Amino acid sequence: MTRVLVLNGPNLRRLGVREPEKYGTTSFDDLVALCRDAGRRLDLSVEVRQTDDEAEMVRWVHEAADEHTPIVLNPAAFTHYSYSLRDALAQRTAPLVEVHITNPAAREEFRHTSVVAGVATGTIAGFGPMSYVLALQAVAELIAEQKTP
Amino acid sequence: MTRVLVLNGPNLRRLGVREPEKYGTTSFDDLVALCRDAGRRLDLSVEVRQTDDEAEMVRWVHEAADEHTPIVLNPAAFTHYSYSLRDALAQRTAPLVEVHITNPAAREEFRHTSVVAGVATGTIAGFGPMSYVLALQAVAELIAEQKTP
Amino acid sequence: MTRVLVLNGPNLRRLGVREPEKYGTTSFDDLVALCRDAGRRLDLSVEVRQTDDEAEMVRWVHEAADEHTPIVLNPAAFTHYSYSLRDALAQRTAPLVEVHITNPAAREEFRHTSVVAGVATGTIAGFGPMSYVLALQAVAELIAEQKTP
Amino acid sequence: MTRVLVLNGPNLRRLGVREPEKYGTTSFDDLVALCRDAGRRLDLSVEVRQTDDEAEMVRWVHEAADEHTPIVLNPAAFTHYSYSLRDALAQRTAPLVEVHITNPAAREEFRHTSVVAGVATGTIAGFGPMSYVLALQAVAELIAEQKTP
Amino acid sequence: MTRVLVLNGPNLRRLGVREPEKYGTTSFDDLVALCRDAGRRLDLSVEVRQTDDEAEMVRWVHEAADEHTPIVLNPAAFTHYSYSLRDALAQRTAPLVEVHITNPAAREEFRHTSVVAGVATGTIAGFGPMSYVLALQAVAELIAEQKTP
Amino acid sequence: MTRVLVLNGPNLRRLGVREPEKYGTTSFDDLVALCRDAGRRLDLSVEVRQTDDEAEMVRWVHEAADEHTPIVLNPAAFTHYSYSLRDALAQRTAPLVEVHITNPAAREEFRHTSVVAGVATGTIAGFGPMSYVLALQAVAELIAEQKTP
Amino acid sequence: MTRVLVLNGPNLRRLGVREPEKYGTTSFDDLVALCRDAGRRLDLSVEVRQTDDEAEMVRWVHEAADEHTPIVLNPAAFTHYSYSLRDALAQRTAPLVEVHITNPAAREEFRHTSVVAGVATGTIAGFGPMSYVLALQAVAELIAEQKTP
Amino acid sequence: MTRVLVLNGPNLRRLGVREPEKYGTTSFDDLVALCRDAGRRLDLSVEVRQTDDEAEMVRWVHEAADEHTPIVLNPAAFTHYSYSLRDALAQRTAPLVEVHITNPAAREEFRHTSVVAGVATGTIAGFGPMSYVLALQAVAELIAEQKTP
Amino acid sequence: MTRVLVLNGPNLRRLGVREPEKYGTTSFDDLVALCRDAGRRLDLSVEVRQTDDEAEMVRWVHEAADEHTPIVLNPAAFTHYSYSLRDALAQRTAPLVEVHITNPAAREEFRHTSVVAGVATGTIAGFGPMSYVLALQAVAELIAEQKTP
Amino acid sequence: MTRVLVLNGPNLRRLGVREPEKYGTTSFDDLVALCRDAGRRLDLSVEVRQTDDEAEMVRWVHEAADEHTPIVLNPAAFTHYSYSLRDALAQRTAPLVEVHITNPAAREEFRHTSVVAGVATGTIAGFGPMSYVLALQAVAELIAEQKTP
Amino acid sequence: MTRVLVLNGPNLRRLGVREPEKYGTTSFDDLVALCRDAGRRLDLSVEVRQTDDEAEMVRWVHEAADEHTPIVLNPAAFTHYSYSLRDALAQRTAPLVEVHITNPAAREEFRHTSVVAGVATGTIAGFGPMSYVLALQAVAELIAEQKTP
Amino acid sequence: MTRVLVLNGPNLRRLGVREPEKYGTTSFDDLVALCRDAGRRLDLSVEVRQTDDEAEMVRWVHEAADEHTPIVLNPAAFTHYSYSLRDALAQRTAPLVEVHITNPAAREEFRHTSVVAGVATGTIAGFGPMSYVLALQAVAELIAEQKTP
Repeated sequence: MTRVLVLNGPNLRRLGVREPEKYGTTSFDDLVALCRDAGRRLDLSVEVRQTDDEAEMVRWVHEAADEHTPIVLNPAAFTHYSYSLRDALAQRTAPLVEVHITNPAAREEFRHTSVVAGVATGTIAGFGPMSYVLALQAVAELIAEQKTP
Repeated sequence: MTRVLVLNGPNLRRLGVREPEKYGTTSFDDLVALCRDAGRRLDLSVEVRQTDDEAEMVRWVHEAADEHTPIVLNPAAFTHYSYSLRDALAQRTAPLVEVHITNPAAREEFRHTSVVAGVATGTIAGFGPMSYVLALQAVAELIAEQKTP
Repeated sequence: MTRVLVLNGPNLRRLGVREPEKYGTTSFDDLVALCRDAGRRLDLSVEVRQTDDEAEMVRWVHEAADEHTPIVLNPAAFTHYSYSLRDALAQRTAPLVEVHITNPAAREEFRHTSVVAGVATGTIAGFGPMSYVLALQAVAELIAEQKTP
Repeated sequence: MTRVLVLNGPNLRRLGVREPEKYGTTSFDDLVALCRDAGRRLDLSVEVRQTDDEAEMVRWVHEAADEHTPIVLNPAAFTHYSYSLRDALAQRTAPLVEVHITNPAAREEFRHTSVVAGVATGTIAGFGPMSYVLALQAVAELIAEQKTP
Repeated sequence: MTRVLVLNGPNLRRLGVREPEKYGTTSFDDLVALCRDAGRRLDLSVEVRQTDDEAEMVRWVHEAADEHTPIVLNPAAFTHYSYSLRDALAQRTAPLVEVHITNPAAREEFRHTSVVAGVATGTIAGFGPMSYVLALQAVAELIAEQKTP
Repeated sequence: MTRVLVLNGPNLRRLGVREPEKYGTTSFDDLVALCRDAGRRLDLSVEVRQTDDEAEMVRWVHEAADEHTPIVLNPAAFTHYSYSLRDALAQRTAPLVEVHITNPAAREEFRHTSVVAGVATGTIAGFGPMSYVLALQAVAELIAEQKTP
Repeated sequence: MTRVLVLNGPNLRRLGVREPEKYGTTSFDDLVALCRDAGRRLDLSVEVRQTDDEAEMVRWVHEAADEHTPIVLNPAAFTHYSYSLRDALAQRTAPLVEVHITNPAAREEFRHTSVVAGVATGTIAGFGPMSYVLALQAVAELIAEQKTP
Repeated sequence: MTRVLVLNGPNLRRLGVREPEKYGTTSFDDLVALCRDAGRRLDLSVEVRQTDDEAEMVRWVHEAADEHTPIVLNPAAFTHYSYSLRDALAQRTAPLVEVHITNPAAREEFRHTSVVAGVATGTIAGFGPMSYVLALQAVAELIAEQKTP
Repeated sequence: MTRVLVLNGPNLRRLGVREPEKYGTTSFDDLVALCRDAGRRLDLSVEVRQTDDEAEMVRWVHEAADEHTPIVLNPAAFTHYSYSLRDALAQRTAPLVEVHITNPAAREEFRHTSVVAGVATGTIAGFGPMSYVLALQAVAELIAEQKTP
Repeated sequence: MTRVLVLNGPNLRRLGVREPEKYGTTSFDDLVALCRDAGRRLDLSVEVRQTDDEAEMVRWVHEAADEHTPIVLNPAAFTHYSYSLRDALAQRTAPLVEVHITNPAAREEFRHTSVVAGVATGTIAGFGPMSYVLALQAVAELIAEQKTP
Repeated sequence: MTRVLVLNGPNLRRLGVREPEKYGTTSFDDLVALCRDAGRRLDLSVEVRQTDDEAEMVRWVHEAADEHTPIVLNPAAFTHYSYSLRDALAQRTAPLVEVHITNPAAREEFRHTSVVAGVATGTIAGFGPMSYVLALQAVAELIAEQKTP
Repeated sequence: MTRVLVLNGPNLRRLGVREPEKYGTTSFDDLVALCRDAGRRLDLSVEVRQTDDEAEMVRWVHEAADEHTPIVLNPAAFTHYSYSLRDALAQRTAPLVEVHITNPAAREEFRHTSVVAGVATGTIAGFGPMSYVLALQAVAELIAEQKTP
């Protein structure tokens, strides 16, 4: 069973608490459950983590790079300035799916720029917690494709 | 069975023929089949269309708006300048998923700007033809959510 | 009786249907009637057309240019990118009045730029359907001025 | 009979004298007469003023705001920098029509930016002194609309 | 008792009248009373003035500069373009506190730029009329500091 | 005899009629004749087309791409915004020569940007209708070069 | 007694040591004492913290958000890029006062931009350590206002 | 004897008082004397005025325009934003010499832009009070040239 | 027989040696021969020169201007910054054809800007050494046109 | 008798020949004579030089720097890009007057930027050949000032 | 023996593992050894550290500042956004050498901007691991210079 | 013994004379001696040249390119605009080290941009004349590396 890391950037542990009119009422625990359920259906071993700490996020990416583990990443605010995270991500070769709960293009100007999107396999944004489920499905398909000669 | 329109912008009928090193070897007919298959699995009546003509695309969006039909849209090059398409899309209330075969953020500078993303429900980009399948799944879920009180 | 073309760009046939909180409840048929009434009062033969098709719009402008027919033009979304329409309009010598139902300066940033305003005689914006009536009156006056030695 | 203030910004008293190849040969007195005539036809009590003084212009706007008097405003050069005038105008609730004798979009780059347009009801530009007449008619219609339930 | 000038820029006499949803219901007279009260508590002789006239504001600053009088200044809309006011302020050596009733950083883009902040001792913004009280306290402390060897 | 498509963008059928002080007095029929004559001399089968319709232009490019036919293209106003045309052109492998009757660098600022030049073999601009003759000669030479081992 | 968190960003523990010609000779311990004294006078329970660690700062803001504790924040260099801090701050509802020891508008260009000011209640900058005292007083007043019906 | 107006913008009456390290120790009265002396030598009737009031400056320019009087103008801070002054100056036909005491190109970025220079005959900057003397000499020569057939 | 100067800017004598993967294997001597051959066919007396020295290039342009000699110019790197060359070229009245071996629009960003194109008759770019042959033909035609009444 | 170098940049030897509608009919020899005459009147030993060669200009500036000779400099096109000339000029300590025959602010956008003005004592522009005479007079005065204790 | 800190920013511990086609095959341990060897030769006590954590990096800089220890710093991705690191570095007075393994000027646009270079003594970039050796040599020389009276 | 060219751009012969507060008191002759000494120690045949002439610099680079000679280059002011020098440098394949005496990042804005850095092997800046010594050492190492299989 392929392992997948679902990495969440700053402030995301507060999902459901933080500005629910923007981010919805699903809590972070709900999100973890949702991802694990999706993992079970897709035959993926899903591990969900969250950190407010850029260095910890970078180390998780190193770990995934070493083990060739696919990543589903919600970089949250790091999206807009963390070149450190970008450099870490550029090293991996397994699939990387950037996810966002809301649609950044429909929000403030500064959210229209992503310094990490350029090194991702693809992006899924705007579908609420479902963005993660779609991302896990994308990972499952990308793995299947790679195994198919 | 809910109807979904899968609308494709300019040059997309040439999929598989056009620059396969960028867009892959899946033909447009393969894409249509892929979307219909996904539709069957998701209990959606999927209709795939393609046009190089901005006005035709706009009329299709009007049709969908009138019938409250969800849209999966690959605006292709229209992404970067067609405010006419944006205005048409801004009128609808059913789900709209913007899809891209490649990851625009990893390509030329001009592809980093989307004039339509701001009025979409969400975006899925970079997964090849699979982007469409994920988008249809997103639509299926969005419809289910709307039906759930 | 001088003929005047009232040309409407993309999405305008959906007036009253489309986002009524922005564009009001007047339908496109109401608008046609309004313009014709104004024409009668002003002794102008008013013909109202609408198209979502840039090429058709360009051909109508050519027709007007050949016949030296004044134009009242609501370029809608074409306002912001159609240099093709601009080039067509630059050829005419009869009056050209650009109209907008809403006030673009009070809306999104991209609506603050008009690529056609530079070749118009003048602009009338922000008065709802009345913008057209004022524009027709402007045309009537411009014609009268031209006839006065 | 509704009162309307027609306010004119810097250098406009020199109409007819100042660069007639740009602004025409109508004098400021002619303009006053033209506005009054139009007022009579439209059943509006029109008062035309001119000032080169930003503070005086601001005070006139305060007066209009207090009395809920509609304004026809040619901000002239104030258009491009007077945030003070913008703030004064943002306070009123009665109709405000911005007018320009020439078409700013067909002139120098700096004339393409208006810091006041965003708080106006609408704009009429490019028709020579007739811009004022059209603006008064717009005011008359806007008042009529407000009275209609 | 040290004298302090509290200078208010354009439109501020309309406080309470002008857009109360933005600027609150405190009237200009209330503001004057508030500042005087604060002055009494702080042992400052506070004189509150308001003008819509850039030249008058500039002259008041000259007066303060000559007498080495500290200034609390709400430049209002002058904040964004009056280099004349900036040059006047650059001449003084006594404390200058820039105040704003609202928080400009949370408002329109053009309010994010201040051409006078660079020559002020400091800035206090966003606390409603209390901004002035804090500013007067700041002045009192700055004077005390200067007297302390 | 190698076939060459000479494709003309919006407003070009009006050559000779449209602003002759800018574009000269040669009519579109004259241009067709000129190109055919040049073709005969160069042993090329020249077919000249014109359209105001972006989608039609795109389809012609697809046709040329399928048949490996060289293109001489005057994109006219499409030069400045039609990424759809750019994407179509990027697919071809036969020579593509961009032509302009006038010198865009000596005209308005917006004409200094070409979104299609980056995918062309080369550009010829500023020689009036002769630009086309030079372009056809370039095509003839490019074909000859390709045939030479 | 209401609790207030006084949070200090990177490099601020070095106050008095770090570039005293810019930041003065008050040490960080002096600052803590100053804030506590002010707290005592204002009947606020003041807790002063400092961190060079963005994640720790973000967690402190979460803690304050959960407990509805007002914040006085000197974001120091985080001011100019930490969207992570901004997102954390956007969640709170209690007062937030941004403070700066120096006047950023009088320093390097990059210090003129604050990515956090837009979500603060207000800003106090340029008064040296006294900025904190004024901020605490502002907090005391904001609390009092909220308690007043 | 030809009359010349020497017009001085805001803050210039404070010459010698205002920031002498930048503007020197010559007082405004000294400057008046200097200009008059130069006038006598050059056979010009020199009248020196100063105002902090944009409207008054505009009126003086109107006066000069009506009388075809040459102007030596130090617009001071108006240089950088007063389009009102620019429009007034654009009306005159007699010589206009823009002067500056200091060299704006060697000062802050905002002083590098002049909105009035484009309508002046020429500019003299950086020579202290001597700038005026040179400007008067320039006027004398320009008048002499005009008289020479 | 009309004389034509073919002027080549910096680094062009190294053609064939310099980065042949970009500029091809044709040597500068080959280029000279190619131009002379073309000249013979076109009845033009062609003189080919090359310099790395801006001043020498400027003097050659002066020489051509004095003798009314047409110029074919490859400004090479001077294209992007030599306003001195631009000013020299602006003086001539005979035809000037700007040529480039490669297509600048398909290369680095800085090559998309030409400071000389605005004063040229026309431009030919992207055809390798053949660009020169086309340019000479253009010159021949331009001369013929001028001789035809 | 103080020596003054009058240095002229590229294309200036062609004065009177080059675009006389812009630069007037005075020839370079006339200019030399004019400067020498002025020198005689002002008791300055004036040496006028011209070069199209940036390196030669730089060497002349070195020579002047070594000898502490004042410079009157018309940098012509070098104004807009020659940082080499700027660095040379920054070394001198004697007066440097930048002159221009025409008013750059009234010409093309690229002429509004001077990379050398920031290191000049002052600038005189727009007075035709008289600009030089005024500049020499300025030099004479600056020297006199320096000699006065 | 002088102590030198060699500080390495995010992702640098992965040297040799991370994108070897860009960063080479030298491992981080090799780099440490290389620096120590160089230190021995240069009589410097070299301590090499690496962190992905901005706060830890800032604390190391504080430590160095307190002890007046020279720093060789490869800020890695922090180069482009960490104003926190910049502020920490601005406090030190001992030599600071910024190093980069690759040449940022030859890579992506965002790598062309360094927010820390402005406070460094100097920069050495592009020589692979040898950049560090050169930097240590620079430090040795800077120390020697400081000791020389 | 490998030959190395040390090329110096405009104004550098004046080292020690020119603004010693910026560039130090080392003369150009000292610099030559310093480089030769370093060469002797590093077993390099060092030839130091200086020119104010862009064309001469370009020819020296051609010479080095032909002979595959490594270059140490201080482009001085050419750094910021000489695309001609950049194109010359892009042709060589031997090592190229860009050096600067001062740290451009700590000086004027225009010095932050280098048009040549993108084609260099690496850069060394800010160490005074020692920058050259470090650069020569870098060259020695780069040559050694190339010789090592």
